[in-house]
Formats: sequence, structure tokens, C-alpha cells
Amino acid sequence: MSDKQQLEYKRHTLAHLLAAAVQKEYPHAKLTLGPAIDNGFYYDIDFGDEKIEEKDLKKFQKNMRKMLSSWKEFTHREVSVEEARTIYADNPYKLELINDINERGESITLYTCGEPASPAGGFTDLCRGGHSENPADEIDAKSFELSHIAGAYWRGDEKNPMITRIYGLAFDTAEELADHKAMLVEAKKRDHRKLGAELGLFTFSDLVGSGLPLFTPKGTLIRDLVIEKIQNIQKDFGYQRVSIPHITKKDLYETSGHWEKFGDELFKVRGKSDQEFVMKPMNCPHHTQIYAAQPHSYKDLPLRYMESTMVYRDEQAGELLGLSRVRSITQDDGHVFCTPDQVEQEIKNIISVIKEFYTSLDMLREGQYWVSLSVRDPETPEKYLGDPANWDAAEATLEKIAKAEKLDYKKVEGEAAFYGPKIDFQFKDSLGREWQLGTAQLDFQMPQRFELEYTDAQGEKQTPIMIHRAVAGSLERFMAVAIEHFAGAFPVWLSPVQVALLPVNDEAHGEYATEMAKTMRDAGVRVELLHASDSLGKRIRTVAKEKIPYRVVIGDNEIESQTISPEGRNDEKLDEMSVEEFINKIIG
Amino acid sequence: MSDKQQLEYKRHTLAHLLAAAVQKEYPHAKLTLGPAIDNGFYYDIDFGDEKIEEKDLKKFQKNMRKMLSSWKEFTHREVSVEEARTIYADNPYKLELINDINERGESITLYTCGEPASPAGGFTDLCRGGHSENPADEIDAKSFELSHIAGAYWRGDEKNPMITRIYGLAFDTAEELADHKAMLVEAKKRDHRKLGAELGLFTFSDLVGSGLPLFTPKGTLIRDLVIEKIQNIQKDFGYQRVSIPHITKKDLYETSGHWEKFGDELFKVRGKSDQEFVMKPMNCPHHTQIYAAQPHSYKDLPLRYMESTMVYRDEQAGELLGLSRVRSITQDDGHVFCTPDQVEQEIKNIISVIKEFYTSLDMLREGQYWVSLSVRDPETPEKYLGDPANWDAAEATLEKIAKAEKLDYKKVEGEAAFYGPKIDFQFKDSLGREWQLGTAQLDFQMPQRFELEYTDAQGEKQTPIMIHRAVAGSLERFMAVAIEHFAGAFPVWLSPVQVALLPVNDEAHGEYATEMAKTMRDAGVRVELLHASDSLGKRIRTVAKEKIPYRVVIGDNEIESQTISPEGRNDEKLDEMSVEEFINKIIG
Repeated sequence: MSDKQQLEYKRHTLAHLLAAAVQKEYPHAKLTLGPAIDNGFYYDIDFGDEKIEEKDLKKFQKNMRKMLSSWKEFTHREVSVEEARTIYADNPYKLELINDINERGESITLYTCGEPASPAGGFTDLCRGGHSENPADEIDAKSFELSHIAGAYWRGDEKNPMITRIYGLAFDTAEELADHKAMLVEAKKRDHRKLGAELGLFTFSDLVGSGLPLFTPKGTLIRDLVIEKIQNIQKDFGYQRVSIPHITKKDLYETSGHWEKFGDELFKVRGKSDQEFVMKPMNCPHHTQIYAAQPHSYKDLPLRYMESTMVYRDEQAGELLGLSRVRSITQDDGHVFCTPDQVEQEIKNIISVIKEFYTSLDMLREGQYWVSLSVRDPETPEKYLGDPANWDAAEATLEKIAKAEKLDYKKVEGEAAFYGPKIDFQFKDSLGREWQLGTAQLDFQMPQRFELEYTDAQGEKQTPIMIHRAVAGSLERFMAVAIEHFAGAFPVWLSPVQVALLPVNDEAHGEYATEMAKTMRDAGVRVELLHASDSLGKRIRTVAKEKIPYRVVIGDNEIESQTISPEGRNDEKLDEMSVEEFINKIIG
Repeated sequence: MSDKQQLEYKRHTLAHLLAAAVQKEYPHAKLTLGPAIDNGFYYDIDFGDEKIEEKDLKKFQKNMRKMLSSWKEFTHREVSVEEARTIYADNPYKLELINDINERGESITLYTCGEPASPAGGFTDLCRGGHSENPADEIDAKSFELSHIAGAYWRGDEKNPMITRIYGLAFDTAEELADHKAMLVEAKKRDHRKLGAELGLFTFSDLVGSGLPLFTPKGTLIRDLVIEKIQNIQKDFGYQRVSIPHITKKDLYETSGHWEKFGDELFKVRGKSDQEFVMKPMNCPHHTQIYAAQPHSYKDLPLRYMESTMVYRDEQAGELLGLSRVRSITQDDGHVFCTPDQVEQEIKNIISVIKEFYTSLDMLREGQYWVSLSVRDPETPEKYLGDPANWDAAEATLEKIAKAEKLDYKKVEGEAAFYGPKIDFQFKDSLGREWQLGTAQLDFQMPQRFELEYTDAQGEKQTPIMIHRAVAGSLERFMAVAIEHFAGAFPVWLSPVQVALLPVNDEAHGEYATEMAKTMRDAGVRVELLHASDSLGKRIRTVAKEKIPYRVVIGDNEIESQTISPEGRNDEKLDEMSVEEFINKIIG
């Protein structure tokens, strides 16, 4: 059994133990479902009229640890539907689960563990198995703890009654639990919603609505710097900007197939006439219409369109979260139209751009990223549009490239888009959390659906292949990840303000500082001049809070020597240097 | 009587003459209304079952010219409602007009002119007067002509039956008529819809919908160049880019007042929940929310936000026209938040940017533009939001600036926005047509409505003043105007391709041309290299059709001398020069 499997069994066991501890205290509480999850486990319990609070968790946890020593072995027995229904006659949730199991034609099993050896044999739960063999021996009582409670709808359906979910954290060792808790504390400090507000990068307005961020000048500058960086990196690869409206008749998505797949997530738009429009949830169908506006020869290909533009998706209000989950999503989108011969080179170019971009963020470190190669789920072929032979070829091409580029890749079945397989870059942030950012997706379907064409060397009409690509992914999510990864201390090139100039006092040094600011600005450095209306100490604290990469104090010495002694945002002192040297260091 | 008034009387007289000519031929046709309009006149006539075609116009026109010599003098008489109703018993249109005149308490007059002196005294029409005194003497028979027919709803209401509108052109002299007709021919050639497609700048898709242009790489480049130019010009004035979503809850517009004013033109957006959103028809309310996100001191002001972003307005399908009238409108928008003391300087800065931008297009020529100073209509004060004292002050400030800046300005009553007075730059294009492009609008209302604040030097809360500004206006309309004004031959800085390189043959000159293209591109020149797969003559014709500013033929001589001899798009030959000299000429 793998370590991962073992840990999952342990977490599942702890869900049972939690239920046992709860039932000891609240014998009439109705147990429902208690699975293992990432980082731990939970159990959903209907406490009826009883109100459970965070402080009750301590008590449950104490009991769990006490009971653990008697949990030596799980036993199980298969029961008939009738017997199961009798045992759970008082519990409508378990009765529903029993019916479901019965309908699927599966056998019904009860798992039991722990003392005291009651007639039912310790604590018994309806379960399909998957536990630690000897919990008392295998589980360190200090390697788990109950973390928090939340409301949850029975089976996640908001039409059902809300019951109580108790969450627990569980790891292999007490040290790992401690590390994870420390990470959570750090993550809370770095929360992009908190830091983003402190750094003045974006805001939300009750009048505008949730999930619709408004970007301040500093936040917009970060977005523009990301777009500019990507454009600079890929300028030798011939991408051209295009521009499309944010709405369309639904006809476009009926042709593309998105209407059928995503109809529910689309925002519908209506004016005073009968005409109904849809807000675009992606840009590819619009971009096909630019391609289709003119006839193309194979000599024109590849054509590479790019555009950083907002798409709109009707996310549930409850799922919105800062910039991580929004309704207005800015995609740094790109679409390549090419011949089959050109696919390999184009994908390689895209990978090269993604690599260079994340290198500029120092995020492309060995072991800190991997690449998922998303292919079909062989068990649900009906989820994918188009000819399986094309799919086979596309998946093989991507794997060939992944090997040639020596990418640390994994094939992930079932993660392909409905129109084609894809390559996604997965990055670990400084807290070890994984984020999917850059992507290249092959598409054999959409060009066919829109009847796109080019004339080949023999004068025959052919269908081009389309590649969807994103480097930063959504700029909103990218910004959320970047804020938390860097804890607001962005790389110099991405910092809205790169240098803070602090004259010791305005009379003696203000004019010199103003001139220096102009020199730096003219050279393209983003400078903020903080006049001496506040004390130097207070200004240094302000600069530190804003995570400005460099501060330069300007006093008599600096004017006399015509040099500066910059300090970094972690108080590191740089060598004395000329303004020109400093500018070169930053612009470099 | 002014010349303009005289011309209008003449055009009105010609509408009578047209009606007389029609009635001669079609005695049962029912006359309705026939006013003077810009460039001429029309008459709406119900021909019943008769079908009138363009070829009939010749006949009417011939008759008009023949009859004109007998039209010596208009006579008129006042008649009672009863008499008028008797005369027009057969004509429901005139009866409706008679009722309207009667209801307004005005007198009913019949105007008569021309031979033969029938009992009714020549041709008589229900009319309130305003004619040439002696048409036969005053009107040159060659200074007018019938131009076209169109369907028109009686009184413009589509619930009414459609009748026939006959249009005529009329000017003071035959020369002016000829000039106008030549302008129309030229305008048709320059039509931005036709030229835009030929130059490959934008397209429309039936799947996306009408009024929703898609911009190709070349069209997008022009848009980006315009934005870049404006940003460069105003970079010393401290504008900062911001970024907002395209939708909002309607609460935002209820607060701003736009909901009440523009509710009907707004696109409504709905997802799967009950929440209704609205597509933004302007950006100012969103921008106030960025301002409101943080407290401001007077030391922070002015704050100047800018954004080139699309707004959406539900224009009637029938009113859409190429890029001139669209549903997705890209505004090069800017909003300044400032103290009352700062208004004057900010408006001056905006005017300076507008002047420099249009100078770069050579459109700021004496007599080719004027400035309208739009103030309230004193007769409809209820149309404007806010305190009249603020309005008085704002209007006075704008007029003071217009005088100080020596602008050729006119005060136009009733053209102010509902939130404040404004200054608009009106440019004449190369065909003499006038377009309103740059604008600066004062706004004392919106900051109050959103309760925006800053702390003044005394620590008191104050309301900032908001200035709305646009330089190019809507990028779509700007592009339509620019295409037609330049007939596609854009200034060099605005040309998507600036230089075409034409090797005489690929074997001997292709490599040299490729290197030269690279040198020019690296220097920032937009170059297209046309390989010798087509003949030189054919390629030169292609370059001419694309209106590329310069072409450079590369043959043995060029390689030997290491110089080039560029030619302009009007075949003008430039001096022989080095590539570096040529690059400097273009990048300037």
C-alpha cells in the first residue's frame, strides 16, 4: 500500500473516530457521511436542535484521543437491506444511502471498531471500508486535530437541510501537522484579499457587485506589466493583437458547441428588442470569425492572434473568493491557426514563452513545478467532441513534445477539454500550494465546426488546426497567486513602485531628490518621492509596508559624493554606487 | 435675410415645385409634408397603388425646370378650419395636419404660386410660409436636382403606413451642386465600410451580430497606435491606467442617475440567479468606485484615471452603420478628480493633449475645426441635475478657458450633458463633413451623488470635481472618420504597415531585402517584405492598394550602392539615402 493510500485510510479512520466521540456525547445526533479529504477529514452530522460551537471541538478531540487506544482492529459484516434499514430506522440520511447502495446492486457493509465491546461491538458505521488496520498503533494522537465547523447542505444540494460539518486536520506525524498549521497561519497573513487592499491594488464595490473587481492604478500597472512581459517574450514568435466585443448572438456558441456544454454558466444579455445576446465566456469562437473574414493560403500560416480581454462566467455568489474566483476574468489569451506540420513547432514556442515568463518570476525551479498532459477519460468517450483518430494523434503529439522538451510531465486521464487534449503548467507557490497557470491546448474540433479553411500547396482546401494558449492564465487568479506567493514583495520588474526616494529634509535635499527622481523616471524606473513631511523613520516604515524593492535616503553625504547607498526591502544594504549604476541594475 | 435663410427658403420653394410637378403627372397622389433639409429638400407623397421608381425622377425634374419660369410670386391666404377641411377632404394626411394646427391655435394658410392661373391660382399647398420671393428669377434651374427616392413612415412613426419620399439636392449655384455631387462620389469611394474591408482592418460576423465589429491585427494595431499616441502625449500630465469590469449591478446607475436617464438604452444581463446586472454604457460611475476605495487628501489630487475600454449601448438595428454607429463602443476615456482650484489647469492640459493629438493627424488646421461650448437650454432646466449656481460657475470657467486658449468657440445652448457643461472639438474632414471628436466635460454632480470626498488643508471634508475627457472619442467612430478623411492613406505613424520592401528577384536580392527588413523592424519600423513570387508591377499595385506610405525596390543598384530610393504612395520619388536615414525619417 502506498504512503498516500495509507494516509487516506488513516484520515477515513479518524472520521469514524470523530463520529464515535460525537455519538458518545450526543447519542441522538444523526450521522450522515464522513470521508477523508485533502489535509484531513470531515463528518457531516445532523445535531437536530442542539447547537454545536467551535469550543465543543476541544471536547470531541479529547475524547477521540482517549478512545483511540482501544481502537485495535476493524471488523465488518455484510447485512441485508432489511437489516440495515432496521438498524438505521431512525436515520433518514443513512436510509437514503442504503437505498442508493441497494439500487447500485452493491452489498451493504457495517464496520466496527473500539471498546467497550457492546452488543454491536464498539462503534459501528455504515461504510464500504478503507481503514487503518490497527488505529491505536498506527495513529499518533498528536498527528491530528479538529480544526473548525461549517454548515453544509446534505449531499451539497442547497434544496436539502443544512447540517453541521466538523473538519479535522490529519497528517502522518505531529511535525507535519505543525508544519501545515504554520503554513495556514502564513497563508492567512499573505491572503491576497488582505494584502491586495493594504497594497492598494484592487477593490470591490457593493454598488458594482461581488466577483467584479476594480483595479486601481497600481493593480492595473501590474496587469499591464504582465501583458507587456508576455508580449516582449513572444515578440519573435509573430503574435498579433486582435480586438473583439464582449457579447455575441448565441448562434456563435451553437456553432462552437459551447452553448450545449456551458449554457448554464453563460450570462444572457437583452436590450429593448427581441434579440438575445450572450456575454462571452471565452474568446476562441470570436477569434475564428476574424480568421474567417479573409481567405488564407498555407503561406499565411501560422496566424497567431492574441488578446488580453475579459470573459464573463456566472459563478455562484457563494463560490466567489477575492481575485481567485471572479465573474469578470481577464484572459491573456492566444490562438494559433496552423497546418498539421506546424503544430509541433508552435507548441514548442508556447512552452518556451511559458518557461521564460515563469523564470522571470523565479517560479520555474526544479521540483517546484510539473506539467500535466490532460487526455481523454477512456471510460466516458461521449464527453469529447470529434473523431477519436484525431484525438489519438493529438495526444501522441503532445506527449512527444513533452518528452523532447524534457518536461516533468504526468498524463492525467479525463482532464482534457471537450475539444482536445492539453498541456498545463502546475506551479507550487512558496507555501507549497499548487496552481495551474500556463496552458497550451490542441483543438481539432472548432476549426471544423466553423468551417475554417486554408488552401494548401496543391490548391486544395484544408482545415487548419487551432491551438489555444495562455501564459499567465487569468490575470485575476495570477495576481492572487503572485500576491500570496511573494507576500506582496514582487520581483523588481513587477513592482508598481521600484524605488522610494527619501530626502532627509526637504530644504537641504528636496530639490536634489526631485532631480534624481526625474532622472530615474526618464530612464524608465518607477520612482516614488516621499517628501519629509513625515519623519524619516515613519517614511521608512511606510516604504517597508508597501514592499517597495529599494529605498534611497538622500542627505548631505549623497549630495557631496554624488553617489547613493540603496537599501533593499529586507534592509539589505547595497554597495555605494552612482545613480546610473543603480538605474542599470533596475532596468537591466 | 441671411444667405443661409435664403437658401433654406429656396429649398422649401423647390419642395413645393416638386409637389406641383408630381401632381401634374399623378393628380390623385396625396401630398403630405415637404420641408427644406441639409443639402436640399424632400417631399413625402402617398402614391396609392402607383409605383414610383428612380427613373420617374427625371420626368419630375424636367417638369420642375419647365414650370419654374412661371413661378413668379407666392400669394397666400388664411382660411378657416372648415374651408381647409373641405379643400383637403380627400387627403387624410393634410386633414391630420389641419387638426394639429388648429389644436395649437395657429392660423391655417394656403400658399400658391405658378401658372396656369387656375381657379385655385396655380399650385397651392397647405403651408406656413418661408419661400423665395420670386422663384423664377432667384432659382437657377441647374442648381437643383432630384437625387433619390426612399420609403418613409408618415411622421416617422413605424406604426404608420410607409409612403414615398422624393429627395432633391439644391444649392445656391450649379457649381456648388456639382461640387456636392463630386463630394458624394468621393465619399462613396472613401466609405469606411468598403475601404476598411479592402484594407483588412475589421470585419462583422453574422454569428456574432450586427453592430459588433471584430478588429483584425491591422485594425487592432491602429487602435493601439491611437491609444499609445494619446498616452505619450499626456504622459507629463500624470494620467494612470485603471481597469474595470463591463457589468455592474443597476445600483451603480441608480446612484449616478444614469438609470433614470438611459434605462432604455442599457443592455440587461442575467445569469442563473435572480441577480440582474447591466452592461456599462459609460465608465465614470465605475471609476468613482476606485476613487472611493481609499481616503484622499487634497495633496493626492488631482487623480487622473484613464482606460480604453468598451461600453455597450442598445442602438436600434436599423441605425447601425459600419463603425460609425455600433453597439460595442471603445472609449478612450479619462476622469480627473480635482479641487475647484485645479479645474482650470486640468482643462487646459486636456485641451493641450487634444490639440497635439490632432496636430499629429494634420487635422488641427485653421478653419478646419471649431470648439462648441455646450451649455444648458435655459428653457428646459428640468433636464439638468444639480444646483444652478454650480452650473453658472462651471459654464463661466469653460468660457474663460476658451477665451484664454484663443479657441474658435461657439456657445451652444441645450447641448450640455445632464451632469455638466462641456467643450467639444468639431473637426471638418477632407470632404467638409463635421465630426465631434475630443471632449472635456465638467461634472459637479456625480461626485456628490457618490459622496466622494477629500480632506482639504484645513482638515475639512470636501467634494472633488470630476472632469470627463476623451481625445479620440470612440475608437470605432474615430477609425471610421480617419479612414474616410485619409481615404485609407493614414499618416505614417498611424499606418499598420509603413514600408513595403520589394526585391526585384528573390535569388539575387531576397536575402539582402530580408536583412534590411530585420534592420528596419529592430529599429521599430513596421515593414512588409513582398517576395518576388509575383511580378514587380503586380506587387507595386498591391502596395498601392494597401496605401502603404513607402515602397522600396531592392535590386542590384541598391546592393551595390548600399543606399535605397524610396517612393511614396503617390509615386513621389524620394532622394537616394541610406537605410539609417530612411529609418530616422520614419521613426522621427
